[in-house]
Amino acid sequence: MEVTRKNFKETLPLISESINKADFLVIDTEFTGLINGRDVSMFDSPQEYYTTLLNGSTDFLLIQYGLCAFFWDEEEKHYKNDAYNFYLFPRGRPGPEKMFLCQSSSLDFLAAQGFDFNKLIKEGISYMTEPIESRLRENLAERQSRSNSEQESITIPVEQRSQIEDICKKVREFLDNSKSDEMEIDRCNAFIRRLLFQELGARFKNEAFVETKVLENKDRVLKVSRLTPENKGENRNLQKKEKEWEEFEEAVGFSKVARMISQSEKLVIGHNMLLDVLHTLNHFFQPLPSDYSSFKEFTHCMFPRILDTKYMCSLPPFKDKVNSSVLQHLLSTLSEPPFSLPKVECAAGRGYTCAQNKAHEAGFDAYVTGLCFLAMQAHLARMRGERGARVAQADAPPLRPFLNKLFLAKTAHQDSPYINLTGPDPTPSRDHVFHLTFPKEWQRSDINQLFSAFGQITVQFLDDTSALVALSRRDLAKTVTWVFANNNRISIMPYVKYKLLNNKHQSERREETSEKFMRLYSSDNALARRDTVSDSNATGSPEKSRGRSNSVSLADAQPARKRCASGVFQIDEMEPPPKKAELVVSNGKRKHSDCAKETTISKRKETNKVIDRYDSDSKSKVECVKAFKEIDSWD
Amino acid sequence: MEVTRKNFKETLPLISESINKADFLVIDTEFTGLINGRDVSMFDSPQEYYTTLLNGSTDFLLIQYGLCAFFWDEEEKHYKNDAYNFYLFPRGRPGPEKMFLCQSSSLDFLAAQGFDFNKLIKEGISYMTEPIESRLRENLAERQSRSNSEQESITIPVEQRSQIEDICKKVREFLDNSKSDEMEIDRCNAFIRRLLFQELGARFKNEAFVETKVLENKDRVLKVSRLTPENKGENRNLQKKEKEWEEFEEAVGFSKVARMISQSEKLVIGHNMLLDVLHTLNHFFQPLPSDYSSFKEFTHCMFPRILDTKYMCSLPPFKDKVNSSVLQHLLSTLSEPPFSLPKVECAAGRGYTCAQNKAHEAGFDAYVTGLCFLAMQAHLARMRGERGARVAQADAPPLRPFLNKLFLAKTAHQDSPYINLTGPDPTPSRDHVFHLTFPKEWQRSDINQLFSAFGQITVQFLDDTSALVALSRRDLAKTVTWVFANNNRISIMPYVKYKLLNNKHQSERREETSEKFMRLYSSDNALARRDTVSDSNATGSPEKSRGRSNSVSLADAQPARKRCASGVFQIDEMEPPPKKAELVVSNGKRKHSDCAKETTISKRKETNKVIDRYDSDSKSKVECVKAFKEIDSWD
Repeated sequence: MEVTRKNFKETLPLISESINKADFLVIDTEFTGLINGRDVSMFDSPQEYYTTLLNGSTDFLLIQYGLCAFFWDEEEKHYKNDAYNFYLFPRGRPGPEKMFLCQSSSLDFLAAQGFDFNKLIKEGISYMTEPIESRLRENLAERQSRSNSEQESITIPVEQRSQIEDICKKVREFLDNSKSDEMEIDRCNAFIRRLLFQELGARFKNEAFVETKVLENKDRVLKVSRLTPENKGENRNLQKKEKEWEEFEEAVGFSKVARMISQSEKLVIGHNMLLDVLHTLNHFFQPLPSDYSSFKEFTHCMFPRILDTKYMCSLPPFKDKVNSSVLQHLLSTLSEPPFSLPKVECAAGRGYTCAQNKAHEAGFDAYVTGLCFLAMQAHLARMRGERGARVAQADAPPLRPFLNKLFLAKTAHQDSPYINLTGPDPTPSRDHVFHLTFPKEWQRSDINQLFSAFGQITVQFLDDTSALVALSRRDLAKTVTWVFANNNRISIMPYVKYKLLNNKHQSERREETSEKFMRLYSSDNALARRDTVSDSNATGSPEKSRGRSNSVSLADAQPARKRCASGVFQIDEMEPPPKKAELVVSNGKRKHSDCAKETTISKRKETNKVIDRYDSDSKSKVECVKAFKEIDSWD
Repeated sequence: MEVTRKNFKETLPLISESINKADFLVIDTEFTGLINGRDVSMFDSPQEYYTTLLNGSTDFLLIQYGLCAFFWDEEEKHYKNDAYNFYLFPRGRPGPEKMFLCQSSSLDFLAAQGFDFNKLIKEGISYMTEPIESRLRENLAERQSRSNSEQESITIPVEQRSQIEDICKKVREFLDNSKSDEMEIDRCNAFIRRLLFQELGARFKNEAFVETKVLENKDRVLKVSRLTPENKGENRNLQKKEKEWEEFEEAVGFSKVARMISQSEKLVIGHNMLLDVLHTLNHFFQPLPSDYSSFKEFTHCMFPRILDTKYMCSLPPFKDKVNSSVLQHLLSTLSEPPFSLPKVECAAGRGYTCAQNKAHEAGFDAYVTGLCFLAMQAHLARMRGERGARVAQADAPPLRPFLNKLFLAKTAHQDSPYINLTGPDPTPSRDHVFHLTFPKEWQRSDINQLFSAFGQITVQFLDDTSALVALSRRDLAKTVTWVFANNNRISIMPYVKYKLLNNKHQSERREETSEKFMRLYSSDNALARRDTVSDSNATGSPEKSRGRSNSVSLADAQPARKRCASGVFQIDEMEPPPKKAELVVSNGKRKHSDCAKETTISKRKETNKVIDRYDSDSKSKVECVKAFKEIDSWD
């Protein structure tokens, strides 16, 4: 079911009902871009992965949201689906104005899939975060409580006097002689409209009501309505206020659906859902915290049961049978033996059927993800000798290994396959990885040559003169630095040491920048221009000044596990969060000729097969990680 | 005439012809947003105005370009127009991938005007700057000169072997038994395709030709074609290379038109054209220089004859008769006595007529701007007792006062109405302006109260506790600091002093940041991660490291006045320019509830009538500046 601003209000009760009766919910989203600036690199830790996406992905806009609710039909003994495909566009007024990034290749891709951008912009549903909602709510209440008379009076400039007088005469004429109830005054710029509000308001207070009318083409005209005994000024004011609240509720829009999903505490499923989750939290709940552990806690608190089908299919017993985990390929694989797709019907117009092919429409992708999940869970049940057409509780043993882990596509085959929302992340060894600096004229083959004694290697280039190199033969790792000690064309150091030095540099830089901000902005000098930092931050410590994580009240969060509007994850300050100095927009001045997906691919072209082992002490971890030996993130 | 990628190539000769026969050209553009972050403030100098737009506006995308060529019909003794409305979208591959900003209210506005975003993204014409074009041209030539055999061979991982063997068998089968000339291989991820390229290339070198085919939905499949004696591998390679060059020329796209306009050296007209000019230079020629005088020189060199109708109509003899200089209002005004619109026809399908109403379509707005210009120039001619239906030379006396001045809408009524491209800008006095710091609880009325002894004031709020205040009674300016010397609730200082201190702070901050960059990035330490700054900049001086202005060869530019591809304005380094640390994207975390236009308006609501005089020694300047006493930028 397609949902736009035209049918959102009337559809909301249906959506609520679908969520309530569902066994599980599936989500999928579409954005205006994937990554800005540096992408995740293949040896990154889950924390670095998160930080990279926080800085590089959260400034894109979420433009389509698919929600598919799967509910059990006890009579027919199979699932049915209610699916919703929401177009989302926060257009400002009365909601917040949005500045957002787009990646031309992403829009091009969406357009090729039939995405309707005209519908998006004209009919998209608005949304906002909770802190913004609270603030705007207060602003509106306060503005309505002030009376109009408090507005400053402007002296009419000489140049405008005759125009204003002319219009006043016309209004007098209309009130005395016209038979219609309304007149419109056009061809006025904003200043003239402001003067007219003042003059007409003063002169015709009891006879006419003046308001701005926005035409379909966004032109603004003044509308003057005749006041009658039945239609008094107070009534008009009351109606106006009611309308403002209605418009405000419309602007909160889709955030209400997102919060319903959260409050249901149901199992929420997605395919490769990390970005979906990040955007969901960031756009409808609260700005993401910069602190990684706060992020994990925040996510788990908002969505206590999450399952990523891309992670699920990369583990046994699926991984050997799944050649490609691209969603459409996975669906094909799961529709053939030894798997089979379940029967899932829908009421007319309420969900999808498999016969439709609307790949990359968020609602349809959510539906397909749900089918894949059902096929895999049925396979697990059969292996356990159960019938199990209906999904077990999310916390029950069959699903437990897959629960609350967000798949990390780009580092999965380097033994870092997931963010664990409810415990420690994998900490794969990096002993076999080295940072190499080499002469500018070197090619990949020169590096191969250099390491010829060490077997196959994986290379990730950092720039023209440096790269990360991973050995497949981990047993030889200890000899590397020794072997190259006297080679003065290159320099080499263990990855761990490189990271330490690098992080030190970065934190030094951050601290110094913070100090400078303090010096410049929080001095008592009356001239300091504070508008780039909010006051509360300017006087805080450097760490605090970055501080979205401070807004998360960790102490209360864990036990209560109440969410969203209910008050646990609150922003103390209603100020907009500090602007991110890290974000850099490139205006076409970026590295050329490669769209994001292709960048990933062309980087990977340099990558040989990875056949590392995950040498941890935990056996289960080893098994889980082995699943990522195939290079399945090339999609 | 609408121009998209579908008809661009065949239309190019027509466009060239239109430009060549024109007496003057009119342009208009549409962008994805107006300003990001701090807007121009009303006491800004032209240089500050430029810097603000450079930082706040150039990261939006230019998405529609209107070009209207007016040419004289000697037989019929009136003008005709050829008009082109170009949809522009740089979609990456083989052009550069673009990251760009959007402002939700701007897109909403365009959609309300009927702008077709689907057409934009699917059929928009690509474009790129000259430095990017040169670099991509070199890259492509170099890539084509390398033979395929140089590509690194990948060992096929165990997991993929059976899949690859299966496909090789199928290809063998196809070559031996099939009657068709082509087969497609689908459901392969990028890694499998890479392996297949290698294996099929090696095994069937003389029998089959393998290439990637991009389907309409952007899915990629491998296409295997049978090689025949007539259709040899070398031919296929040659054809492939030719196609790559064709695609590259398509990606250069609209930049060719922009460069034709520049090379024609004709009079180029626009209405409120500052942003049009900035975007034109920045997207099709070269990144704008940060240095203001280089910008003026660069602009004049690229477009030696520019005329802004918004500036023209704000001067005598027009200003008294033009109530609103909004383009549509201006057209209405100029179609009534004492003015009259000229007769302008067009060949069928080649231009617009006045009967059409396509306001805010860039081509139509360009056409209307041309009509306004013709009406105003005919009025001037009549006042001089000439017939003058045909436009005089741009450099002739009647047009000279209006030439090469870019209108500054937001500071015009503060005596700073234009950027003068061919001479010094106005330097209005700011002696009557003060920077005021006041208690947080103060309202506008408290400030009025404070200044009650000084007559009417203009107030621009900077934040909760500071504002700029301008006196209308300039004669009292000298007494202000003295009068408030002992008031300890506020502090006040002359605007000029405030600017000096502020600039000092800013430049200190800039220098320190540059120094830090130097320290972090240009050290010999192999660990320094250089990817955020280009090498050439990292080793330069702080000033240089900002340095797009350095790329402009000032010495040669002025006398030769050669442009674009011809070599004067060259970027020495083909590196992408340094990323702008100033740019901050807000992701909805910006000041709320006001779209850009409305922000301007609500700020202005605080502004009383300005009745300053421009106290310069030059009489002509005084006259020119008086024209801006009306608050005509409220539109």
